[in-house]
Amino acid sequence: MLGLAAALAAIGQPDSTAHLSDYIRPFIGTHGEGSMYPGPAAPFGMIQPGPDSNGKQFSGYDHEDPMIHGFSMTHLSGTGWWDLGDFLFMPGTGEPKYDPGTDTQPRSGYQSAISHNDESASAGYYKVKLQDYDTWVELTASDRAAILRITFPESQQAWILTDLKHVLHWNIVWSHIRVEDNATVTGYHLENGWAKERHLYFAARYSRPFDDYRIINDGKPVVYGGERFRSQSETEGVAIRFQSQAEAAGANLRFLAKYKTSKDEVIQVKIALSAVSAENALKNLDAEIPDWDFDRVRNETRHKWDRELSKIQIDGTQEEKETFYTAMYHAFLAPNLYQDVTGEYRGFDQNIHQAVGFTNYTIFSLWDTFRAEHPLLALFQAERDADMINTMLAHYDQSVDHMLPIWTLQANETWCMIGYHAVSVIVDGYFKGVKGFDARHAYNAIKTTAMNPRYDGLPDYDRLGWVPDDKETESVSKTLEYAYDDWCIAQMAKALGKEEDYAHFLKRAGSYSNIFDPSVGFMRGKDSNGHWRTPFDPHGHKDCTEGNSWQYTWYVPQDMPGLITLFGGNDKFSRKLDELFTFGKPENKEEDAANGVIGEYWHGNEPSHQIIYSYCYAGQPWKAQARLRGIVKDFYGNKPTSLTGNDDCGQMSAWYIFTALGFYPVCPGSDYYVIGSPALPRAVMTLSNGHKLTMEAENLSGANLYVQSMTLNGKPWNSVFLPYREISRGGSIVFKMGPQPDKNWGSDSRLNQNSTP
Amino acid sequence: MLGLAAALAAIGQPDSTAHLSDYIRPFIGTHGEGSMYPGPAAPFGMIQPGPDSNGKQFSGYDHEDPMIHGFSMTHLSGTGWWDLGDFLFMPGTGEPKYDPGTDTQPRSGYQSAISHNDESASAGYYKVKLQDYDTWVELTASDRAAILRITFPESQQAWILTDLKHVLHWNIVWSHIRVEDNATVTGYHLENGWAKERHLYFAARYSRPFDDYRIINDGKPVVYGGERFRSQSETEGVAIRFQSQAEAAGANLRFLAKYKTSKDEVIQVKIALSAVSAENALKNLDAEIPDWDFDRVRNETRHKWDRELSKIQIDGTQEEKETFYTAMYHAFLAPNLYQDVTGEYRGFDQNIHQAVGFTNYTIFSLWDTFRAEHPLLALFQAERDADMINTMLAHYDQSVDHMLPIWTLQANETWCMIGYHAVSVIVDGYFKGVKGFDARHAYNAIKTTAMNPRYDGLPDYDRLGWVPDDKETESVSKTLEYAYDDWCIAQMAKALGKEEDYAHFLKRAGSYSNIFDPSVGFMRGKDSNGHWRTPFDPHGHKDCTEGNSWQYTWYVPQDMPGLITLFGGNDKFSRKLDELFTFGKPENKEEDAANGVIGEYWHGNEPSHQIIYSYCYAGQPWKAQARLRGIVKDFYGNKPTSLTGNDDCGQMSAWYIFTALGFYPVCPGSDYYVIGSPALPRAVMTLSNGHKLTMEAENLSGANLYVQSMTLNGKPWNSVFLPYREISRGGSIVFKMGPQPDKNWGSDSRLNQNSTP
Repeated sequence: MLGLAAALAAIGQPDSTAHLSDYIRPFIGTHGEGSMYPGPAAPFGMIQPGPDSNGKQFSGYDHEDPMIHGFSMTHLSGTGWWDLGDFLFMPGTGEPKYDPGTDTQPRSGYQSAISHNDESASAGYYKVKLQDYDTWVELTASDRAAILRITFPESQQAWILTDLKHVLHWNIVWSHIRVEDNATVTGYHLENGWAKERHLYFAARYSRPFDDYRIINDGKPVVYGGERFRSQSETEGVAIRFQSQAEAAGANLRFLAKYKTSKDEVIQVKIALSAVSAENALKNLDAEIPDWDFDRVRNETRHKWDRELSKIQIDGTQEEKETFYTAMYHAFLAPNLYQDVTGEYRGFDQNIHQAVGFTNYTIFSLWDTFRAEHPLLALFQAERDADMINTMLAHYDQSVDHMLPIWTLQANETWCMIGYHAVSVIVDGYFKGVKGFDARHAYNAIKTTAMNPRYDGLPDYDRLGWVPDDKETESVSKTLEYAYDDWCIAQMAKALGKEEDYAHFLKRAGSYSNIFDPSVGFMRGKDSNGHWRTPFDPHGHKDCTEGNSWQYTWYVPQDMPGLITLFGGNDKFSRKLDELFTFGKPENKEEDAANGVIGEYWHGNEPSHQIIYSYCYAGQPWKAQARLRGIVKDFYGNKPTSLTGNDDCGQMSAWYIFTALGFYPVCPGSDYYVIGSPALPRAVMTLSNGHKLTMEAENLSGANLYVQSMTLNGKPWNSVFLPYREISRGGSIVFKMGPQPDKNWGSDSRLNQNSTP
Repeated sequence: MLGLAAALAAIGQPDSTAHLSDYIRPFIGTHGEGSMYPGPAAPFGMIQPGPDSNGKQFSGYDHEDPMIHGFSMTHLSGTGWWDLGDFLFMPGTGEPKYDPGTDTQPRSGYQSAISHNDESASAGYYKVKLQDYDTWVELTASDRAAILRITFPESQQAWILTDLKHVLHWNIVWSHIRVEDNATVTGYHLENGWAKERHLYFAARYSRPFDDYRIINDGKPVVYGGERFRSQSETEGVAIRFQSQAEAAGANLRFLAKYKTSKDEVIQVKIALSAVSAENALKNLDAEIPDWDFDRVRNETRHKWDRELSKIQIDGTQEEKETFYTAMYHAFLAPNLYQDVTGEYRGFDQNIHQAVGFTNYTIFSLWDTFRAEHPLLALFQAERDADMINTMLAHYDQSVDHMLPIWTLQANETWCMIGYHAVSVIVDGYFKGVKGFDARHAYNAIKTTAMNPRYDGLPDYDRLGWVPDDKETESVSKTLEYAYDDWCIAQMAKALGKEEDYAHFLKRAGSYSNIFDPSVGFMRGKDSNGHWRTPFDPHGHKDCTEGNSWQYTWYVPQDMPGLITLFGGNDKFSRKLDELFTFGKPENKEEDAANGVIGEYWHGNEPSHQIIYSYCYAGQPWKAQARLRGIVKDFYGNKPTSLTGNDDCGQMSAWYIFTALGFYPVCPGSDYYVIGSPALPRAVMTLSNGHKLTMEAENLSGANLYVQSMTLNGKPWNSVFLPYREISRGGSIVFKMGPQPDKNWGSDSRLNQNSTP
């Protein structure tokens, strides 16, 4: 009832949330490890127009780079590897250049200097002055289309270049371009990149017909003519093709629209994408931006962000709001829409499919996002999470390997990272009220994936109870993450009445214990004969994925009591955990913040993300509270450098959102969250089901970071575990905070022996 | 009435035509200039599976080559340039090889020796023994799908290789392959060839599941695993990819299905194509060949040929029937179906279109086929000709250059050759009862094409009355061919009541006279100031397309009386024409037959094709009669070497068909044919409209090659012109032949001053 009343109240007050998007700071994470892009995008949008600088940042843009090369239409959100950067548009004046230029000789190419004084970014908007060309560019985006609003100086030679060769880091193997009419261009390119075969189309309409245009192939203008059958003899510096002047194909194409401009003349280019066809790109464009109203598009996208951000309304300082709402912005940028307005999308089998009953998405960085990003979506974006799950099931149906996605990128499987964490996403969704997918279909996909006889050591793992380090790389990480995923499978098997499967996967979920070596107190590589990795170095990276045994040893979210028992109980466990933060070197806040590390703890990468919450399972939640608030304070913020690790499609930000709200999904698929230490005085959350959940942290301050007590819906709550069932219909969480640990609250280890109190 | 009765009679006698396809000799034209392929194909089919030898022949196969590389799925029919040869399948035994091998070291690769003793080809069927592997391969094809029936020896290592890199002469820029299940594979490649961007998919089903399989990338097996995130460490000689073992993408892929076979074990592979998607390739496959009945497919295709060939039932010797029916076979191989069973096709804009109200075709070698091939289709295949015209109109709609096709190859314009002869095809169809296309749409396309301001010197031509040789290559040929096409446009403009257009294009149709230089008696290059090409060499190729002034000077089909007047009358004209055949060297039948030439006359290429009929316009038809029968006898036949020029998608064969029947479409778009000398004693033609036209040549023999008299529907006919309107409802043509010219018949020049008597 409370939830409903609150929801109705919210409906009556739309204006109160109208400007939450003003807190978005797109430059957060655009220098250093964050790997974010500053360009505009709609929530979960298909297009992300934005500036690309020297290409060394995975996202394309580095806030410290004094030059930009232009504005490409797609960007990965915080990933640790390059791709996208499709279809770069760059306006300019003077003699046109067709190559971007080099770092040492930037003026040899079309790139331009910029100044942060002449640059701004906000929700759905980016603006910059290209100093070399005295030209302003503004960008906005709808779901599948973008507008570039260009303000030129007076020029006899103004131009807008489209570089079809440009992508971030990788190679274009083919492209084509068609000048459909004197103000419309369509194009295509095929990239062999992180995605091994990525087909993408664009359509662009120009607000003013070109005075003239040219296509450039391998640096030379394409002219009508050539060879014996065409009109024109070969000319110096001219590329002769068996093709017309209005279209060309090749691996190295550019298009140049040419104008004479008057002072402050505005020319707009609107651009849409499609992975299906140029025809669909045009449909996407004309459906979403039928007019030339830049401000309408900008305002509509800003309003979409207002709506998304209003799902969590917080109290806090300006900096806290900028940090928090930008974290929400990051969390809701990806996965990305990957479907045309017609409902068609390019499937993992490279066929064109019609999405029936769901909307298709892409960019599943699952090794990262199963941890907190997808649990966040399940809680606040259940409808989209269902679409994403249905996308994963379509992927499974289309997969010749009969696998759910591992890390998908626009109709491609990159096979990046380890585990089969789509399982976690699906099972967490299944238990968290994410509706709209077929549970039996999903379970078949999950089980088939987890039993794949060819995937990363699975048969050995299934037979031995661990991934043997003599047969498989990263065997410790794989064993641990498989065991967690298997626990998820067991839960769903049980719910579906599949007792045999339940027993099988629950047994596999216990595999972690097979690689814990009590003699060293670490998870440790083991070969197929049962011999430990020797010599053993817990700092070594040999058996772990982007980490080491110091970081991975804690990864038993499905059975923390079991892990603690292996250590010999809460005290021994906690002492070892203390060492994690001090091992090797004393804490140095400044240096730690720059590198995202504290001792061996490395917040900058996902294997550490649940570790601090481990204290809560061991009866010492106050240690978690102190550490969490330290990280919230030191490793997040509102500056370009504020993200100390790759945002990884929202995971780094989702960690912050949960943690700042006071609880975290340590074990997705379970029915509980683990309570940490809230970092905000108040938050009103509108859950996916419309119910309102309020969190209040009384007496909160920088010093008052310890939980003294808590009530849940008015009743005292003395457990560190927050059951989903207790909050799923909304309600109220009230913390009382203080400057010293209250070692009674949340410390009863008996309450911790089961997953929920 | 006669026509109807004859049609009914034919319906009652299906068996009488059941085996006309037995006369088809697919090896005709497979060595020398013919450029034909011997593999099976359905009439106008989308797939042409067949053997490829060393790749020096444009069609892929040379009858003199002792080795073949395998069996690719597509082949161009008699063109003078390479392309296609998609998706080569090659079975074998022993250690598999992944490259074809070289001419000097054939055994370094997978190619195999063959012997003509172990090779046969007939309608819808090809069979050969691969000597190196003691393996027999049989092929058959439906419209879009093929079956390979392979008979293996006993082998521990039998295999079937699919080479996705193989195409004829050109380059694959990208490909992918997916092992859909243990007996199904789909694949894709993108070629940059004569067609600049050609996307093609295949689907293959194997009658027996593979014992094992592998994908080979850059010569190395693709194994599951690689880098840090996948299962297997790098191994010697193994290609590691970020991809599974069951799919791969790259520019150099092969697929190998592996078997242990027993003696004489038959394994079949059925393969279908699609330019749209792998999904559609599977649909095409399963729709057309749902079973494994090789003989059913073969018989159905043979029956299709029986039906097509039955449209002209001739009397003649075995050799004449083999020659004639194989000419019909050649004439009905191309253009090719280019549309899936779903109705979808890849358009010239590379979008996927649904064909509404027509069937889409490709391979329009229009500079060749407008002459006799399309007139033959208009007369005997009007429904398909209408589909082809609608395909051309769709191409026009999709063309950013607003042009009808020039020479199209699978969704690509090659821009090969000159002129805008789609105009001729459309106008001839319009006047010859080809129904089912929108005449006004067609006329708009025609006029827009002919007025294109960028195409091959058209503005100068329109302004000056000739294509100036200082601004444009091949100016003489272009002027002449434009003028003919313009005459076609004028006729259609007149029929549609467009008087202004009629006058404009009729004026342009007279442009030929501007480049006739009476001082030399030749068509001659002229520059934009009106100065003749100096020095002038009528043997020179500078201003002509694949020819010279000796050959091009006669090309005024739209106004032969006007041309004759320029020469100073019939006698001067005829004497000059006589010189064509003797100029430079005396006739040498043997040498002429090998080279397809007589003096300066070159039957091997299209510019000469109408020349001999010019005698008919000058009152000396007996000279034409002698020359025509000489060519029918010496330049055609039933041997691999029998075609002395490229068949050019049926044009060379269509010339033979018309000529052997006694008349030829010298001026497509006009309402008449020109009567030559029949080479067959009797032919019963079923026209597109169902009416029957009978041709009888009484007293015909090798020596009796001169027309003594003729009746048309029982009435004496003393003109060399045969009006379409007189035969369009069927009827009877009876020639009386004799050993000496009857210089009265057909010689009244007054009858020749207009296009019809």
